[in-house]
Amino acid sequence: MAKRTEIGTLGEFGLIRHLTEKITLKNPGTLKGVGDDAAVLDYKEKQVLVTTDLLLEGIHFDLTYVPLKHLGYKSAVVNFSDIYAMNGYPKQITVSLGLSKRFSVEDLEELYSGLQLACEVYGVDLVGGDTSASLTGLTISITCLGEAGKGEIVYRSGAKETDLIYVSGDLGAAYMGLQLLEREKRLFNGESDFTPDFGGKEYLLERQLKPEARKDIIEMLAANHIKPTAMIDISDGLSSELLHISRESNVGCHVYEERIPIDFQTASMAEQFNMNLITTAMNGGEDYELLFTVPLTDHDKISALKGIKVIGHITKPELGNYLVGRDGGEVELKAQGWNSLASE
Amino acid sequence: MAKRTEIGTLGEFGLIRHLTEKITLKNPGTLKGVGDDAAVLDYKEKQVLVTTDLLLEGIHFDLTYVPLKHLGYKSAVVNFSDIYAMNGYPKQITVSLGLSKRFSVEDLEELYSGLQLACEVYGVDLVGGDTSASLTGLTISITCLGEAGKGEIVYRSGAKETDLIYVSGDLGAAYMGLQLLEREKRLFNGESDFTPDFGGKEYLLERQLKPEARKDIIEMLAANHIKPTAMIDISDGLSSELLHISRESNVGCHVYEERIPIDFQTASMAEQFNMNLITTAMNGGEDYELLFTVPLTDHDKISALKGIKVIGHITKPELGNYLVGRDGGEVELKAQGWNSLASE
Repeated sequence: MAKRTEIGTLGEFGLIRHLTEKITLKNPGTLKGVGDDAAVLDYKEKQVLVTTDLLLEGIHFDLTYVPLKHLGYKSAVVNFSDIYAMNGYPKQITVSLGLSKRFSVEDLEELYSGLQLACEVYGVDLVGGDTSASLTGLTISITCLGEAGKGEIVYRSGAKETDLIYVSGDLGAAYMGLQLLEREKRLFNGESDFTPDFGGKEYLLERQLKPEARKDIIEMLAANHIKPTAMIDISDGLSSELLHISRESNVGCHVYEERIPIDFQTASMAEQFNMNLITTAMNGGEDYELLFTVPLTDHDKISALKGIKVIGHITKPELGNYLVGRDGGEVELKAQGWNSLASE
Repeated sequence: MAKRTEIGTLGEFGLIRHLTEKITLKNPGTLKGVGDDAAVLDYKEKQVLVTTDLLLEGIHFDLTYVPLKHLGYKSAVVNFSDIYAMNGYPKQITVSLGLSKRFSVEDLEELYSGLQLACEVYGVDLVGGDTSASLTGLTISITCLGEAGKGEIVYRSGAKETDLIYVSGDLGAAYMGLQLLEREKRLFNGESDFTPDFGGKEYLLERQLKPEARKDIIEMLAANHIKPTAMIDISDGLSSELLHISRESNVGCHVYEERIPIDFQTASMAEQFNMNLITTAMNGGEDYELLFTVPLTDHDKISALKGIKVIGHITKPELGNYLVGRDGGEVELKAQGWNSLASE
């Protein structure tokens, strides 16, 4: 049986010290990390980006099938993704945890090992946080700070008529991974000698359980001197993010069904589940790909780059926001996003 | 009856827009607040301070007697206090909320009105956050960013032997306010036509429900060209904070019972409750006063200032950390702090 050390044996300060003592700071701009009333950072002439995410057990994650290390990794990465979506680079995170007695010190070490792995991979320092008792499930609140040079930041609001719309990677896989995990959980609950059937679906699981933020895309665009006019990361689904760009930029958009990038495993799983593939790709969420717009004149430069696909173009606002089907029919885009608080 | 609008009628993005649309940005360094993947800030040549606090219903607050507006105000102020404790000035906060359906839009307006009032009073911008469904109680996670000039920052680690130890305001009142509220809650639960008896105890309630951060002390020290060698805010109780300074500065300390500042209402209430007054003042917590050390040579300058009291002095580390009683007896300081996760 795994070793189990009760959190109470360390106390609040002991626990924080235990979890953070091995942390080394990587960025020269991080002057002081954990251990005072506040962390101290030096951004010199760079601008500071700040984003935050709150993850609650039972709403954003299910510990029945999400390993704590993966949860730590993903919690950090989704915040990095928001910073890349501004065309910036994440530099520091703070991590606050609400913990019930159900969690042991070893559990928290697992969670922290995932957080620290993400920090290593993306060159980010963990500089602070708060640890508290919780009467209920696990609560994770992460704030990420990042930097961007003046004039480098890309907002949602800069898209212009005739700009082309691009998306990185492929869409819908994380959502299909979630469906798969949920199905296996239901099956598992019915049988005692159950072995989950994940063969050939590794990509879907990885997209759901261990997503990556597209640092590589930001670096590639910079290396090729392409600055998007507008950018956002795809966390709530492509439809929802397109509507954010249209709203903030006061434009409309047309995207084309046949251009939406979808992985073979996503398509195959949608068929097995008898789900509409394009709906999955448009509204699935948690892809953490980048959606951005670029002037027509940059298309030649960008079309030579790997891992980026043009999916449509920006229009005048009065033309609305539409998905054009393979048959030429148009369907208006609707925001899906988060409905957990809607009255059922 | 109060108007009740269900949160679900607005949806996630509608709710965030509704709560944040009236927010105006005050600081020239806040370039972009709510509404993109990240907020954008310019700190120019200043250094960036960052601190975060997680507040959970049932652990950190009890909505039976804490009005939501006060809760919003206090949630912001406790973060500002951490920035002042670095000798810096808070400039921006992000606010993440986990909400169950029990809360209405009007409830959140109350909470936000408290947050915004605190921001106005202290000159801070609310620049972002996250709003999520929660399966359980209210979760509030706040991150605060602040600024300080290079060379102005005061850490916990700078205290030197023979430095004098100072504390602002008075101690123990917030804790007595909490005892009072808890008592009235117990009484209330027994009687239906109950009127709480708070006469003459307004100061205790205010210290518990609507604490202030000591911006005025930081400004006064700066105006008088006094830079503390070490500083911390008193959130977990004087004993606990003294031990932090001793540990981080590798020193010891002696503080004197007769020097600990205590308000008359605190003393009177402790007597009524038959509680040890000095224990209350040393371990009560939530005072949000500043504890700091200053070289002996600055004592003449500082003794002319109002609202600050010398309570003891820094020693060699091997002399330990002691409270010297009125009778000259010495009691070793023990960390109290947070024990909610300790096994009972």
